[in-house]
Amino acid sequence: MIELNFSNMMEGVIGVSGLPESIIEDFIDKVKGAHKKIEERFWPELAFIDLISQDTPEIKKIAQEVKTESENFLILGIGGSALGSRAILEALSPFHNLQKIPKVFIYDNVDPRTLQQMLAIIDLKTTSVNVISKSGNTAETAAAFMILWDEMKKVLGRDASKRFIATTDPEKGNLRRIVNEEGLKSLAIPQGVVGRYSVLSPVGLLLSEVIGIDSEELLMGAKDIQKKCSDAELWKNPAYLFGTLLYLMDREKHRTIDVMMAYADGLKPFTEWFCQLWAESLGKQGMGLTPYPSVGSTDQHSQLQLWIEGPQDKILIFIRINDYSVDIQIPDVFQNMEGLSYLSGHTLSELIKAEEEATELALVKAGRPSMTITVPQIDAYHMGQLFHFLELATAFTGLLYEMNPFNQPGVEEGKNLTYGIMGKKGFETKRKEVEDHREKRARWRV
Amino acid sequence: MIELNFSNMMEGVIGVSGLPESIIEDFIDKVKGAHKKIEERFWPELAFIDLISQDTPEIKKIAQEVKTESENFLILGIGGSALGSRAILEALSPFHNLQKIPKVFIYDNVDPRTLQQMLAIIDLKTTSVNVISKSGNTAETAAAFMILWDEMKKVLGRDASKRFIATTDPEKGNLRRIVNEEGLKSLAIPQGVVGRYSVLSPVGLLLSEVIGIDSEELLMGAKDIQKKCSDAELWKNPAYLFGTLLYLMDREKHRTIDVMMAYADGLKPFTEWFCQLWAESLGKQGMGLTPYPSVGSTDQHSQLQLWIEGPQDKILIFIRINDYSVDIQIPDVFQNMEGLSYLSGHTLSELIKAEEEATELALVKAGRPSMTITVPQIDAYHMGQLFHFLELATAFTGLLYEMNPFNQPGVEEGKNLTYGIMGKKGFETKRKEVEDHREKRARWRV
Repeated sequence: MIELNFSNMMEGVIGVSGLPESIIEDFIDKVKGAHKKIEERFWPELAFIDLISQDTPEIKKIAQEVKTESENFLILGIGGSALGSRAILEALSPFHNLQKIPKVFIYDNVDPRTLQQMLAIIDLKTTSVNVISKSGNTAETAAAFMILWDEMKKVLGRDASKRFIATTDPEKGNLRRIVNEEGLKSLAIPQGVVGRYSVLSPVGLLLSEVIGIDSEELLMGAKDIQKKCSDAELWKNPAYLFGTLLYLMDREKHRTIDVMMAYADGLKPFTEWFCQLWAESLGKQGMGLTPYPSVGSTDQHSQLQLWIEGPQDKILIFIRINDYSVDIQIPDVFQNMEGLSYLSGHTLSELIKAEEEATELALVKAGRPSMTITVPQIDAYHMGQLFHFLELATAFTGLLYEMNPFNQPGVEEGKNLTYGIMGKKGFETKRKEVEDHREKRARWRV
Repeated sequence: MIELNFSNMMEGVIGVSGLPESIIEDFIDKVKGAHKKIEERFWPELAFIDLISQDTPEIKKIAQEVKTESENFLILGIGGSALGSRAILEALSPFHNLQKIPKVFIYDNVDPRTLQQMLAIIDLKTTSVNVISKSGNTAETAAAFMILWDEMKKVLGRDASKRFIATTDPEKGNLRRIVNEEGLKSLAIPQGVVGRYSVLSPVGLLLSEVIGIDSEELLMGAKDIQKKCSDAELWKNPAYLFGTLLYLMDREKHRTIDVMMAYADGLKPFTEWFCQLWAESLGKQGMGLTPYPSVGSTDQHSQLQLWIEGPQDKILIFIRINDYSVDIQIPDVFQNMEGLSYLSGHTLSELIKAEEEATELALVKAGRPSMTITVPQIDAYHMGQLFHFLELATAFTGLLYEMNPFNQPGVEEGKNLTYGIMGKKGFETKRKEVEDHREKRARWRV
């Protein structure tokens, strides 16, 4: 089971930059109220919690077809429809495309260079395309889907439609309509589950099965952490503690950046998944900690200087790996070099763990708080725990801030302005706004 | 030539959250002082500026040997010894390992899973290893080097040493000593040039040549932007404006996070390179903006919500691409879907540019400042400009903050504690500190 160690957040351990026990005690009742709301599914979007008991046979069946028919598996999606899949892929099947079939490509942008390269590399004849959009209306995903639809038709004719799997709302949206009209294979993202809480729905599980990861393992992990995080008692519930401590660091100590630093290359996309989940859920009403993705020990040579000697505005969240499953010994070479010989006989996992522990303590000594999620090992079961744990913690934190962690009203204006520029009907005044700003914007440049 | 547009930083354009012209005017003399220091090479580390006129024949010669002998090119380095190379690789040769030989692997961590995978994939018999460390003493790089040295010997015997290229200090350090004792090929990082300002030294140029990018093109770009950034006049100098505007936003407006959002997948590692450069150079003395890496349009579905409706603590730095070199048209399919048909007939580059412009304006409307670096196209010449421009701007900003942008004193303690844990002689008290903290740290966990 993953474990949350929050000693380095506490005044008793790290001094004045930490939180006194009493301030957390004072929160117990507020947390009980939030707990009740979660239990009652106060927001319908808390439905993500119930993903842990979903059926997977349909997902497994489609994955089997993909594996049989295809050498390439192309995912079209953006934000919550892509980040979870990438997190699973890189954590559980590193260097996948150099070793395994089907190769996996995730197109989560509208960058023409990227798509042109992908189309040059992959043979569409042996490709399955998974188009993912909860609403079915996302502009970026729609554009990519339209292009792939056309290209696949050119190569496969009528059979092209058999190679598409749409993962979308069970009833609504353009993508569901196309599924019905064209007879595409499809998987439903259950009612209530929104994009950034959907990694353990068919959104992430189909990819898992396609790359040979048993989706039941992910769900089993989620189930087990759900049990641990169902305790109404703050001191016993890691999800509630995670949220409460960050909330208090923000409101009481004015620390507004939460860095998630995972000591594993394969968890880099996982930290980016967390940053989307947290930022889009809790960045509103003028509030919200800024989540920062990071990898150790690499970023000790990038960001650590700023964390240690820069402004007192950050909290570190370390992800410590107990067992890397494999290890490599540092050999007895260059024994005449005093600066190197201390490394001989140790292993890489000893070194990376030493770096993690040393970085924790160096931050403590500089008066910078941190907490640590310890992960027994990087496998599907524990990835399931990590995903579900952080989704629970994020939703819970929304209750503390008294904000809805499931909407994203702030991004609408950008979409509308894009529609204006692209000439979508009804958005003519938005186009006019852009043109007016172009003039003003021409003033200051060099 | 790249262009800096800073209209959306100005009060006259975006209102009270912008900077008044007068406050920038007041800075003109301070900037002239800083300019003089740069011209005089006030710090010896300003030597990075002179990289623009370096000779490249030796780099080209070694690259040619690598290309002739090897199917794999493995870089061992961390921080400034890896990020620039990765930025060049992904910007200028996307999906490189699926299309080109030699394949490139960058090992910039001590994660045993990563190295084990790399060793499983690559055939060491046909591999060249470039070990990069300015000091020659970096623990992570040393550990990786020791392992590769041993593994290559097992496979190639005495010939192994011919397959190593050390990029390090011209005279000092363990790595230079090994070069001399073992007769390795080597390239010198010129005196004064420190890791994070070294991408346009042999550190980044060897990789460029190995993947078929003419290093002279990178240097030509740097030379041309150097000219433009040699103007003592603030209003005419994009590097000085970049630094001054961010400095003022920090000190006058309490905006402490500078997000670099590049509208190109291939520039993601470039934004990470910038984050290391900026964070390690300017995060000290309790000050420093936190640089944040981001990719558009992808992160509109991740971070944008927070930027628009979260705390007023950020400045956006957009990288806008004028010409993506390739383009793909969105076809006339699904014409009966009103929500999609507006896309037909447009191209992906029209869409991504619309998204960039719309996001700029949406931020302006929400009272959030930004500036934009416009890049004519993503090629070696303009990458050279981007690298050199930001290095100049960062060094200059150090003068505004009155801090040395070339050291990183804050990371020493973490290194010493690591030495303690790893049993390096002379660091016994550090080990004791770690053990004492282990006890305290056991208190709060769940």
